[in-house]
Amino acid sequence: MIYLDNGATTFPKPKSVINSVNFALKNGANPGRGGHRLAVKSSEIIYNSRKTLANFFNINNPENVIFTLNCTEALNIIIKGVLKSGDHVVISSLEHNAVLRPIEKLKKRGVSCTIAEAVERDNEKTLNNFRNAINEKTRLVVCTYASNVFGIKLPVERICALCHQYGILTCVDAAQAAGVVPIDLSDSSIDYLCLAGHKSLYGPMGTGALIINTDTIPDSLIEGGTGSSSDNYNQPEILPDRFESGTQNFIGIAGLSSGIKFVNSKGVLNIYKKEMDFIKKTYFEFKKTDKIILYTEEPDINFNVPVLSFNIDGVDCETVSDILSEKFNIATRSGLHCAPLAHKSYDTIETGTVRIVPSVYTTENDINSLLYAVNKIK
Amino acid sequence: MIYLDNGATTFPKPKSVINSVNFALKNGANPGRGGHRLAVKSSEIIYNSRKTLANFFNINNPENVIFTLNCTEALNIIIKGVLKSGDHVVISSLEHNAVLRPIEKLKKRGVSCTIAEAVERDNEKTLNNFRNAINEKTRLVVCTYASNVFGIKLPVERICALCHQYGILTCVDAAQAAGVVPIDLSDSSIDYLCLAGHKSLYGPMGTGALIINTDTIPDSLIEGGTGSSSDNYNQPEILPDRFESGTQNFIGIAGLSSGIKFVNSKGVLNIYKKEMDFIKKTYFEFKKTDKIILYTEEPDINFNVPVLSFNIDGVDCETVSDILSEKFNIATRSGLHCAPLAHKSYDTIETGTVRIVPSVYTTENDINSLLYAVNKIK
Repeated sequence: MIYLDNGATTFPKPKSVINSVNFALKNGANPGRGGHRLAVKSSEIIYNSRKTLANFFNINNPENVIFTLNCTEALNIIIKGVLKSGDHVVISSLEHNAVLRPIEKLKKRGVSCTIAEAVERDNEKTLNNFRNAINEKTRLVVCTYASNVFGIKLPVERICALCHQYGILTCVDAAQAAGVVPIDLSDSSIDYLCLAGHKSLYGPMGTGALIINTDTIPDSLIEGGTGSSSDNYNQPEILPDRFESGTQNFIGIAGLSSGIKFVNSKGVLNIYKKEMDFIKKTYFEFKKTDKIILYTEEPDINFNVPVLSFNIDGVDCETVSDILSEKFNIATRSGLHCAPLAHKSYDTIETGTVRIVPSVYTTENDINSLLYAVNKIK
Repeated sequence: MIYLDNGATTFPKPKSVINSVNFALKNGANPGRGGHRLAVKSSEIIYNSRKTLANFFNINNPENVIFTLNCTEALNIIIKGVLKSGDHVVISSLEHNAVLRPIEKLKKRGVSCTIAEAVERDNEKTLNNFRNAINEKTRLVVCTYASNVFGIKLPVERICALCHQYGILTCVDAAQAAGVVPIDLSDSSIDYLCLAGHKSLYGPMGTGALIINTDTIPDSLIEGGTGSSSDNYNQPEILPDRFESGTQNFIGIAGLSSGIKFVNSKGVLNIYKKEMDFIKKTYFEFKKTDKIILYTEEPDINFNVPVLSFNIDGVDCETVSDILSEKFNIATRSGLHCAPLAHKSYDTIETGTVRIVPSVYTTENDINSLLYAVNKIK
């Protein structure tokens, strides 16, 4: 199978990830919940995984790495833990339902929201839109690093720096960027970085992380046993315990750590460049015919991540994906990609799009096969 | 190693569980997020896992099985999704921090709580305490199926039936019971059953479930992309989507399903009886000396699950566990077990306890080794 649905989850997973999950499954007891050898060894694996993430994103304290079920949970923790009734939040026009839906919920609790339009290829305009959206009640800005539908990168560092000028907290959804785009939090205005572990970080599904890069610690979303301060009915304040209640996904976390080591061994920038080359080639070939509808400017490493949406004129996107799967054994994803606002911005809310996302395992042949297949369908 | 810390997580996991996780990791794409073969196959695995749980607990609709990160998340979903400001909740005196801490949080939001004392060996008194704790504002009763510290079973079915007489919703924490005690929801007054997947259901850590056995659907705790109704900014109402936002723990869920099949192949009652025999033997041997402190009545399958807490007179519980681990290679857990209320009830909040919990893999030899080791320490 030619797998170009890496935006949903990367496939296959590296052997080292599979081995780590296996080792954890065969040798793991509950980390942080016992003093016997197996539990201590498991705690070490978790701590080392935290260190791996801390190093990868260049923060000092591994304790500020919070493991979550997925990026959605990380975003919910921040959105609901920071915003109180009366607060205002600014989001970009390219946000995912993982941002839109929690905020829609908070609107019923007295939180107001303004959408700042992301302007493709014009960071100044985008920045200006954020500046104009901010008001004296703005407590938080939530912004995707890059659109999961159209691959458009936002100037997140500049947006976050702007926010800090106004004392506004910043949260970045890096689900579609982490592992492809180098992210260094050491000199960054990003306060909260939300991650999917199972996409370009090559961990298993069921892993995500929240990295807290500020002293402002939000309220907890889920409370429970943490193996710490057990006689206290209140959730502990310390990190990561505050946000990690109950037994965590030990085998997933072990796998995620190996995924990040795998990415490191390849080099984030190398991966980024290679995948962008594939996206560029696809774009240029698609551009040659009027029958393929493209929505974005020519892919550029300065402005895009390796994600491409398209449609074939007169053919429903779901049909395109079905034919690609059934006839050509090529996996893509079609539909609205859980990001209705992005689709509205690009006038594809009615049609959806076919999305292709390469991975480190994608080959020139895979792309040629895709081009051949799309050519046959159109 | 002799592993008697199965109350924290069962170890080892069955081969079939390891194989299922491996298969899922090597062959899984994102279920419910694409129409290509790999994604469809993955969706089938998830659906079949849902069916496995539905059958195991005897409910009709697999859609009412919600997968969660752990039992703590399931409990948080119910406690926070059901209780609103002004509501009253009743809990037992044996609850875990997974219940106590979310309720402590809600107290600050206008929810009040009464603790009903669980009286060992006297279901009538326990039931009466629940009856007396209920008032006209009581919206929910949360009750553990069995104490994770002392193994005491509560008459949950009778408590829940009583609640239904008063139109009160019922939530049962079955973390320490599911897989050991037969639970049949088909003719039950349990509205919400919260489960840990990685204990006596033999799934991997990072798995849990909420089973909804009523038409009263709580508010969602986490919102995000569900792969359904993607153009709607509101969280979908349908199950399980309402409570499963973002990419789920696909490999863990596949493993949990195999864990339950493993339990089924052994027979829940067989497991229960065998493990109770080990606990009884341990109890009787411990009872022979004054130097070992026991807190509960003689273990009885009608009143207990296979969990035993003890202390050695004059030796700190952590020290006992450390010696058991270091000198005898026996894994137990010591401390407060994330259940301060239960420890207060049994006057062990200062001392903690050493806890032993067998599993299906525990042998007569393991128990003899434990008895020998404890005899040496005391």
